[in-house]
Amino acid sequence: MPTANAALEKVRAYAAPKAGSALEPTVIRRRPPGPHDVLIEIRYTGICHSDIDQVRGDWGQGIYPMVPGHEIAGVVTAVGERVTRHAVGDRVGVGCYVESCGSCVNCAAGAEQFCARGMTSTYNAVGTDGEPTMGGYSTHITVEERHVLRIPDSIPLHRAAPLLCAGVTVYAPLRRWRAARGTRVAVVGMGGLGHLGIRLARAMGAEVTMLSGSPRKEDDARRLGAHHFHTLPGPEEFAAQAGSHDLILNTAPAGVDQDAYLSLLAVDGVLVHLGIADGPTSVGPFSLVYGRKVVAGSMIGGLRETQDTLDFCGAAGIGAEVELVDAARVNEAFAKVVAGEVRYRFVIDAATL
Amino acid sequence: MPTANAALEKVRAYAAPKAGSALEPTVIRRRPPGPHDVLIEIRYTGICHSDIDQVRGDWGQGIYPMVPGHEIAGVVTAVGERVTRHAVGDRVGVGCYVESCGSCVNCAAGAEQFCARGMTSTYNAVGTDGEPTMGGYSTHITVEERHVLRIPDSIPLHRAAPLLCAGVTVYAPLRRWRAARGTRVAVVGMGGLGHLGIRLARAMGAEVTMLSGSPRKEDDARRLGAHHFHTLPGPEEFAAQAGSHDLILNTAPAGVDQDAYLSLLAVDGVLVHLGIADGPTSVGPFSLVYGRKVVAGSMIGGLRETQDTLDFCGAAGIGAEVELVDAARVNEAFAKVVAGEVRYRFVIDAATL
Repeated sequence: MPTANAALEKVRAYAAPKAGSALEPTVIRRRPPGPHDVLIEIRYTGICHSDIDQVRGDWGQGIYPMVPGHEIAGVVTAVGERVTRHAVGDRVGVGCYVESCGSCVNCAAGAEQFCARGMTSTYNAVGTDGEPTMGGYSTHITVEERHVLRIPDSIPLHRAAPLLCAGVTVYAPLRRWRAARGTRVAVVGMGGLGHLGIRLARAMGAEVTMLSGSPRKEDDARRLGAHHFHTLPGPEEFAAQAGSHDLILNTAPAGVDQDAYLSLLAVDGVLVHLGIADGPTSVGPFSLVYGRKVVAGSMIGGLRETQDTLDFCGAAGIGAEVELVDAARVNEAFAKVVAGEVRYRFVIDAATL
Repeated sequence: MPTANAALEKVRAYAAPKAGSALEPTVIRRRPPGPHDVLIEIRYTGICHSDIDQVRGDWGQGIYPMVPGHEIAGVVTAVGERVTRHAVGDRVGVGCYVESCGSCVNCAAGAEQFCARGMTSTYNAVGTDGEPTMGGYSTHITVEERHVLRIPDSIPLHRAAPLLCAGVTVYAPLRRWRAARGTRVAVVGMGGLGHLGIRLARAMGAEVTMLSGSPRKEDDARRLGAHHFHTLPGPEEFAAQAGSHDLILNTAPAGVDQDAYLSLLAVDGVLVHLGIADGPTSVGPFSLVYGRKVVAGSMIGGLRETQDTLDFCGAAGIGAEVELVDAARVNEAFAKVVAGEVRYRFVIDAATL
């Protein structure tokens, strides 16, 4: 049953009124679905660390009131007349962006997150209609159909939501750098990204090592599929593991000792950074040339990669490990994310908004 | 006609008696060919910047007297009884190393330069026989056959010699990072490596840009195949070229502004360092993640890659641009290399030793 357009004038949401404010209940407007739009009743939205960064204004001037959320899982309740990809009742997701041109060289290559004309973030951006975008901490969202992904039936929606950002963020570099049977993958940091890194790398057939700052996470790491677990930091650990990894996914946002990580890599090894460091990171003159090693970055993924992530997880039976929270506790959840006290992703139950 | 073994006791060479000394004429001993050895009459040897570094002792404690030279081209004059790859009269070359185990994981992968048991450098190393190795600034050298490469008939030997180090050093990353028709390759620095980088990238079908500190090299760059030439440094040049390259080969040994070079790269672009910087180089927090870019190192090449370099150059009609020098002028040539006054590789005529 289509949602009445009148209801779209009063969509419940949680917003930060200004930079650094606590989030509070509000009501926002969503546009009625245009010919190519899908209206989604949101069921669950993951809390990504970047939600906190943007609410704080750490990424530059934000747009307020800000409704965060770009790990959205829900069900289609209405479709525009020309929509072909989705139907009412479909289980769908929305990730970090809701618009991209679809025709530039990067979009054509499936890298819509780097759309040459600029992609439109799911929130904290201005859409092509001139209106600020509002994210998934809300009960409904209207999105152009190309930017809506299908969620396989085998993944519960609350465990699927984090795949739309955290999942594709680890899936894309694992695929690009060919994690597979016979490769040795280390994941640095066991949070929202890292715990999915273990599961995905393991499902791809790799030998998986978790490098975590917290020894208390060893049991979880092994349960999720890690073959090995090492506590960081520790020079003796680095020396013992020299040359023993083919790919390292660094999910930790803080600056790192790149030379130490590069020493862990075998010839042709690759260190991929998935987070934004606090400042410049340096590398010694021999660390890359000797062993012809690679330092790379990666940032979420394209639409096809995001769908591939969901399809792969559906086939492999992978969902995020989540803690459901009521909307009223979102500020408390933010504080716990900052303190590293979440196992391993908070997901807001939209029924409580 | 095999060289008499007695003659191998008195092989003419140029050596540095101690760290930082000028090179002077001397006589060295070469071993008679063992069952798997090839004896080569050296015709030409290129002068690589690393020869100068090592004579100076800049790479740590050197072994003296030191006979440099690892860009060796010559003709086989004797072979051991079990040699199958080469015959007397063959035109052959020797590159940066003369021994590798052949069976470790890196050798098996064709990356003998990273042999896990340690490769033996062509000079300034101790071979498995316990004797110091002596390089190509000499009239003869005895080398195990697997480490001897075939030089195609179409390449004059003096123009082939620099391919054994400089050539493979640019060929390997161009292949690994898929320079081809439709890719845009920039080469930083127009010296021994850079001038070959232009020719090889052009022959692979790429659109080639030379980024040089010296505007006087534009005519040469275009003659060698560069489609574009830009003088460095210049912030306005960087801004105008933002996102316009797929692959940058940095042949300049000095530290560089990596963020500036990374800004020149398109999505998925790769910056490869081929030299050893003077110290750590840094990269800003967004430079790699946004555009999922890559910084990589590369160091010469494996035996197969070296042979591929020679075969590719033979088929494409590529040789190095060289200035022949008599052995008596080798110290003068060293000074000119340091001053950047060579177009584009000095090659010692072994007949003058």
